[in-house]
Amino acid sequence: MTDDQLTRAADRTRAIMRTTLELAQEVGYAKLSIEGVAARSGVGKHTIYRRWPSKGALFLDAVLTSGEPGLDYPDTGDIVADLRQQIRAAVDLLGQPPQGPLFRALLGEAQHDPMVAAALNERFIRPQAERTVARLRKAQQQGQLSPDFDLDVAMAILSGPLYFRFLITQEPLTHEYVERVLDALLIGMTPRP
Amino acid sequence: MTDDQLTRAADRTRAIMRTTLELAQEVGYAKLSIEGVAARSGVGKHTIYRRWPSKGALFLDAVLTSGEPGLDYPDTGDIVADLRQQIRAAVDLLGQPPQGPLFRALLGEAQHDPMVAAALNERFIRPQAERTVARLRKAQQQGQLSPDFDLDVAMAILSGPLYFRFLITQEPLTHEYVERVLDALLIGMTPRP
Repeated sequence: MTDDQLTRAADRTRAIMRTTLELAQEVGYAKLSIEGVAARSGVGKHTIYRRWPSKGALFLDAVLTSGEPGLDYPDTGDIVADLRQQIRAAVDLLGQPPQGPLFRALLGEAQHDPMVAAALNERFIRPQAERTVARLRKAQQQGQLSPDFDLDVAMAILSGPLYFRFLITQEPLTHEYVERVLDALLIGMTPRP
Repeated sequence: MTDDQLTRAADRTRAIMRTTLELAQEVGYAKLSIEGVAARSGVGKHTIYRRWPSKGALFLDAVLTSGEPGLDYPDTGDIVADLRQQIRAAVDLLGQPPQGPLFRALLGEAQHDPMVAAALNERFIRPQAERTVARLRKAQQQGQLSPDFDLDVAMAILSGPLYFRFLITQEPLTHEYVERVLDALLIGMTPRP
């Protein structure tokens, strides 16, 4: 392709992504369709289908490319402060429109479409888990975390309670909730001497 | 209604519930429809709509009435053994068909339909949380759990990691995983003296 063609292709992709998010917010995920995105973006339906074989694939791409999630781990040398800051940033993002409702719809679709679930894990969950474990491992080596703490379940126990509230009880994700969960995880359930 | 009419109504309800689960398993939740349930069960579409205003409401009722979930807490006097047994029972139920895929579809629908989410919480999650907290409170009073352990987040930290694996990474829910999560939660992340 020439430079000009590449620029037009990138413009088209951006228009499709933007239109997908707009329509999902306006009509809801259930009524979102590739035909609707084609009509509003002015891009041919077959052009969209060539790259995104299903509505779920298109929606996943649109949500995951919609701006920097900014969920990197800080490293101030204090693991508790860093965890608190990172998890607060995550709940601030999930706790408000448009990201919250869009991400909720994406996780809903992942329950019906295994390809969406696999892509979500590969592109978002696994990289985030790797960053989490890397930060925790360093803290463990510095003696800030117990040598017995099982890094393989760290991501599940740290983010599981957030997803539980986000997806199951659907109550607001507040900083106070983050604080209570972190306290419980850091100290543990059984008595300390 | 006469006794005879009541019996027929109960039979009709059972037929609708059974047919809903059968069809959901055969065609998947996306293709399940009240029309399809009406056609196969021989019950009129309007009769179904009168009681269940949406596919989501019908499916929720069918999944939650499909047999005893059997997730009560044992009380042997040993909180760790009791938690282990209860959580194992839960993952055994979720980890296999038909309950696992049906419950996954129900949780997916709860992300798109707030009425399904609210009913799921009222009928399943909240009662389960109350049983969990009651068992944990007793253990706390007996000194088996830390007096600082925050019972208000207990349900989220105990079941969040299971839902994380079930809904997000979608890896198998094994007894080994239960064990590792429980260990991490009981001991806590920070070093013990």
